[in-house]
Amino acid sequence: MNTVFVIGVGLIGGSFALDIKKHNPEATIYGIDKNDAYLDEALSLGVIDKKAKIEDLEKADVVIVTVPVDATLDVLPKVLDEISDKAIVFDAGSTKVDICLKVKHHPKRRNFLAAHPIAGTEHSGPNAAIHGLYKNKTNIICEVEETAFKLQEKALKLFSDLGMRIRYMNPKAHDKHIAYVSHLSHISSFMLGKTVIDKEKNERDIFDMAGSGFESTVRLAKSSPAMWTPIFKQNKTNVIETLNEYINNLKHFKQLMENEDFEAVYNEMQKTNHIKDILNGIQ
Amino acid sequence: MNTVFVIGVGLIGGSFALDIKKHNPEATIYGIDKNDAYLDEALSLGVIDKKAKIEDLEKADVVIVTVPVDATLDVLPKVLDEISDKAIVFDAGSTKVDICLKVKHHPKRRNFLAAHPIAGTEHSGPNAAIHGLYKNKTNIICEVEETAFKLQEKALKLFSDLGMRIRYMNPKAHDKHIAYVSHLSHISSFMLGKTVIDKEKNERDIFDMAGSGFESTVRLAKSSPAMWTPIFKQNKTNVIETLNEYINNLKHFKQLMENEDFEAVYNEMQKTNHIKDILNGIQ
Repeated sequence: MNTVFVIGVGLIGGSFALDIKKHNPEATIYGIDKNDAYLDEALSLGVIDKKAKIEDLEKADVVIVTVPVDATLDVLPKVLDEISDKAIVFDAGSTKVDICLKVKHHPKRRNFLAAHPIAGTEHSGPNAAIHGLYKNKTNIICEVEETAFKLQEKALKLFSDLGMRIRYMNPKAHDKHIAYVSHLSHISSFMLGKTVIDKEKNERDIFDMAGSGFESTVRLAKSSPAMWTPIFKQNKTNVIETLNEYINNLKHFKQLMENEDFEAVYNEMQKTNHIKDILNGIQ
Repeated sequence: MNTVFVIGVGLIGGSFALDIKKHNPEATIYGIDKNDAYLDEALSLGVIDKKAKIEDLEKADVVIVTVPVDATLDVLPKVLDEISDKAIVFDAGSTKVDICLKVKHHPKRRNFLAAHPIAGTEHSGPNAAIHGLYKNKTNIICEVEETAFKLQEKALKLFSDLGMRIRYMNPKAHDKHIAYVSHLSHISSFMLGKTVIDKEKNERDIFDMAGSGFESTVRLAKSSPAMWTPIFKQNKTNVIETLNEYINNLKHFKQLMENEDFEAVYNEMQKTNHIKDILNGIQ
């Protein structure tokens, strides 16, 4: 693994670059990004060793595609066109159905591993890249049987070095479940932020009265719209389903309050307290 | 300030007890709680020095009422009945209108200061009490002019010792604003937890796929229903208003997705990103 290319040198790609370099000091990390300022920043921060172009990919051992999921549909086939037979390419996108479908018949399909590391922060850009982002995080791999065995092994070794645990799923199940545990959280957070901002024109009031609870609940509303818009677009059907259920639950809660049925309000919360036990498993 | 009574020895009252003792080692902290197991726990943890009864309040210098807001309506007049003229009583409830109204005509109204420290965690009970909970937190004081001047001074000295900053508001404005920045966050979080739990019967799947983003967004769903039900009951009108606006914003977002208007989806998120600057002020 001497030649590693990271396409998209932001939080996700940059954090891969930092940890791969740490585990393989001999490797050269090449960065590709349509945003040249990002490349310069990644270079000066030491996130990448060299700037590169898509045509340089023929010398790659590993290619990591960490661009927004709509850009992945465009970039991934081009990457597969350029690489040699020995290279392993993986992505880190939050949707898997469209991406897997896009390269289903590509002659180099077996060089690609569809991955989704459940890791990140609400920050973005090369400056947001951090060491250890992937440690103890889950990495969901889809259609593993479509990837050449030796290349699976290579990728799994890399994920293992970074401290990730692996779960295998099919793309449809991935997109459906992740809509609940990730995509919906982002929308609930964005809309909470919007509701409060719309109401509280005097920002000083929000800032003074808001506590750590509010901060925690709206944290995801800081996330990048450029990254999240294409995710919602690609996972539209599942996300709309989760939104329907979420809106219905909120309406039901409101109805209970309007009916002054506070015993039922209590029970709604009490049943959900059970989330404690589930969250205890997330580290 | 030699004799301090804490009524309700959970997270909020217990954390007051710990810090007051630290700043006033000579003080004796008495605990009163309808839950005797809590009192024993608070005693063995060193959160309080002695167990007490409501009849003992005549010797109090300071009384802190930190019980659920419905219980406060019942307990607070009894506390005022018992105390001496020199005692200052304050509460920490998340609603202020009903509490202020309840004691409006009490002969000892001037011994009471209506307070709401914006501090807490999602945990509860004496075991959840921590040092420094109130440091750098906002404490909202309502109807300050209804409290005797010397007793205001005493309470403000205590809040200042604990590192709190003070904001003055009227109870109506408090209850309206806090519905947005605190009460709504709790409901959005509880309903998010419910939506995911209802869908994901196999908990292992949630636990494996959920990341820190989900954890942050549902953190408040761990909160105590016994504390939150009476808050929603007392602040019903404001909370229903926030829920209406939140539900409308979610429906609008869903409509944009259904219309495939992803430019508008992008703009919704981009405008809300502005929450970053607001949150930078919250520590």
